[in-house]
Amino acid sequence: MKILLVGSGGVGDALSRILARRFRTRPFADAVVVADYDLARAQRTVEAVRHREGDAGVRAFSAARVDASDAASVEALAREVGATHVMNAVDPRFVMPIFTGALAAGADYLDMAMSLSKPHPTEPYAKTGVKLGDEQFALAPQWEDAGRLALVGIGVEPGLADVFARYACEELFETVTELGVRDGANLTVDGYEFAPSFSIWTTIEECLNPPVVWDDGAWSTLPPFSEPEVFDFPGAIGPVECVHVEHEEVLLMPRWLQADRVTFKYGLGEEFIGVLKTLRKLGLDRTEPITVKGVEVSPRDVVAASLPDPATLGPLMRGATCAGLLVTGTGKGEGFAGRPREVYLHHVVDNAWSMEEFGAQCVVWQTAVNPAVALELLADGRWSGAGVLGPEALPHRPFLDLLAAEDGYASPWGMQERTPTPSSSS
Amino acid sequence: MKILLVGSGGVGDALSRILARRFRTRPFADAVVVADYDLARAQRTVEAVRHREGDAGVRAFSAARVDASDAASVEALAREVGATHVMNAVDPRFVMPIFTGALAAGADYLDMAMSLSKPHPTEPYAKTGVKLGDEQFALAPQWEDAGRLALVGIGVEPGLADVFARYACEELFETVTELGVRDGANLTVDGYEFAPSFSIWTTIEECLNPPVVWDDGAWSTLPPFSEPEVFDFPGAIGPVECVHVEHEEVLLMPRWLQADRVTFKYGLGEEFIGVLKTLRKLGLDRTEPITVKGVEVSPRDVVAASLPDPATLGPLMRGATCAGLLVTGTGKGEGFAGRPREVYLHHVVDNAWSMEEFGAQCVVWQTAVNPAVALELLADGRWSGAGVLGPEALPHRPFLDLLAAEDGYASPWGMQERTPTPSSSS
Repeated sequence: MKILLVGSGGVGDALSRILARRFRTRPFADAVVVADYDLARAQRTVEAVRHREGDAGVRAFSAARVDASDAASVEALAREVGATHVMNAVDPRFVMPIFTGALAAGADYLDMAMSLSKPHPTEPYAKTGVKLGDEQFALAPQWEDAGRLALVGIGVEPGLADVFARYACEELFETVTELGVRDGANLTVDGYEFAPSFSIWTTIEECLNPPVVWDDGAWSTLPPFSEPEVFDFPGAIGPVECVHVEHEEVLLMPRWLQADRVTFKYGLGEEFIGVLKTLRKLGLDRTEPITVKGVEVSPRDVVAASLPDPATLGPLMRGATCAGLLVTGTGKGEGFAGRPREVYLHHVVDNAWSMEEFGAQCVVWQTAVNPAVALELLADGRWSGAGVLGPEALPHRPFLDLLAAEDGYASPWGMQERTPTPSSSS
Repeated sequence: MKILLVGSGGVGDALSRILARRFRTRPFADAVVVADYDLARAQRTVEAVRHREGDAGVRAFSAARVDASDAASVEALAREVGATHVMNAVDPRFVMPIFTGALAAGADYLDMAMSLSKPHPTEPYAKTGVKLGDEQFALAPQWEDAGRLALVGIGVEPGLADVFARYACEELFETVTELGVRDGANLTVDGYEFAPSFSIWTTIEECLNPPVVWDDGAWSTLPPFSEPEVFDFPGAIGPVECVHVEHEEVLLMPRWLQADRVTFKYGLGEEFIGVLKTLRKLGLDRTEPITVKGVEVSPRDVVAASLPDPATLGPLMRGATCAGLLVTGTGKGEGFAGRPREVYLHHVVDNAWSMEEFGAQCVVWQTAVNPAVALELLADGRWSGAGVLGPEALPHRPFLDLLAAEDGYASPWGMQERTPTPSSSS
């Protein structure tokens, strides 16, 4: 396996660190070419890997320059380095050039976010327009014909959440009422009253786009911030207000799994929801430039520039982040067969741990560990396929085992049985 | 009287229209020189006056260019046109050059907002630093020595509110517990979910500066948005949430009038308060430029540019604005002597009326009518004085009468008696 990693921002950098650590005991790839539009940034990642993991860890690594907005640039570099797998770790705006560049180069492809949506032109808050991933699935026949695999949405959400969904549908439930992704955190940043731990540009994009749900065999959309619900997260996180958000899992799970309803709710919390609503009210969510005293500037870029750079906040952050899937339906197996069941499958990462172990903040590390697991499964053949597939199209057991195993990635996931105990009188 | 009007923005433009209308029957000034940094804007105001009031109305008017940030430019123009009165109608950032330029030219001076404050360096939300108007009052001896008058704060608030205060203290109350300015509106703008009817730049300045109060013989400050109170405004406006805001009346009234407490509360309403809090949280209230993708821009300017220009909204506005003074204390005169009393003195302007009559939106018209009344009183000697004086230093009766009289400015004010009726058993 030769990996071309496109993008050495937060997630690309963390993935490099995770792979290098793993290669100490299991060097499953011969090469990792870390490529960025900014070559110096790619070099910084390789240097950071050398610093943390030593010369042995970094042996497979090299840095290169690539223009992720240009499929020809991606194809050329993939051919030049003989990439068997192109791993996309950049902004979703660049999904399509990397996806098509990989196909042209005859490489397999992985990403953690799918091609972007466009709202329905007249009924944006009721009907879907172009959906997340539609552009990629339209090219599925070409990937099948080429016998190559595009494994899309293999971060944590989408990614691990989709693996959880397959596990629930195969092993825990006879019929599923809802596959409900629920994401929440209790992160704070020392010294800042308000400092998002992730890109506010992307958060605005996700949260102000019409959220999509799968309901009774069809996709539809809702107004932003619909159906607020307080979800009680495990660990020290506790209750957080969650709302519907547009997310890939809702588009992936129904393609391979059976459920009445598929949803994604994000634990933004009341304060953040208020901030996003105000930005929209003032037009500060807009990306088109406006003229300010003779200068052209995009209001959303100004909002992002006004806040501290999330990439610099890791050392100042405290708390943990939780990704997970709430599943309701009729159980299967001993003690649950034929009875209503509710479980929350989840994965919690503490920031102090990920900073100490990898020098990566927890949200970014949690995203990056999943493609590392997937690449290892693809390298040794436990995962394989052709076409455009989501994580739920592949067997869940090897993934969940390798993620949690002490001699694997040592990052345990958990399951809360939330089924109410039947009262003794019933 | 020869008036040099500095600034032909919203208020300067409306003041020109009001003066020209008045000159039809009472031409109390020989000249009005409308001066602006942008000569074309001053010329547009003169043209608008000609259009509405005809050649007779506009005879006294001419346009000129001035740099309000430069005292020498103000002085030179005042001397050139032989100004007896310099009327400041620009942003409070330019108070000091206009104020000192007028003094140097030997002219009297009027403004509608006072020199700016600076927060206390270590305890901004408890102690005052440099207060509104401090820089102007520091020069009071020079104005007295020159025998010239600087009449400061003669818009509506400050201005009419201060005249109300003198009226209450002299005629309605034996002792005053609180002079409480309360300002509210029910304005909406057709076609906009959110469109402030006044400069958001100035509103941020006013609302995020530490609010000042006069309490038991001293000035002190509070945190922004302190002591929220729902005040029931007259007319169709009704209840609006009001909070403490830094405003000139609190600095003016205690210099001439006796009251235990002087406050200013602004009816921002819950939504607007939320917006301002969010802007502060995100650092978007800042005026210092930040770097956004290689471009330098002030976040507060971006917020202002993102919203519709309030100067263009008059025709789309609906509703009315109310300025007023809530007075509590022990009454005087028949039926009130020695008893607790509470009155709300107020002035309401409906936007449909001001647009129809003057082509000016109501908030701007309400500000501009008061200096017109003051200039007329100064022209015929009913008001006179030397030094730096607030409106409450001058007799209230001629002002209140001329403002309301049908053959004056025909803009009636009102008084709500809010004293609870004593129950028959007490």
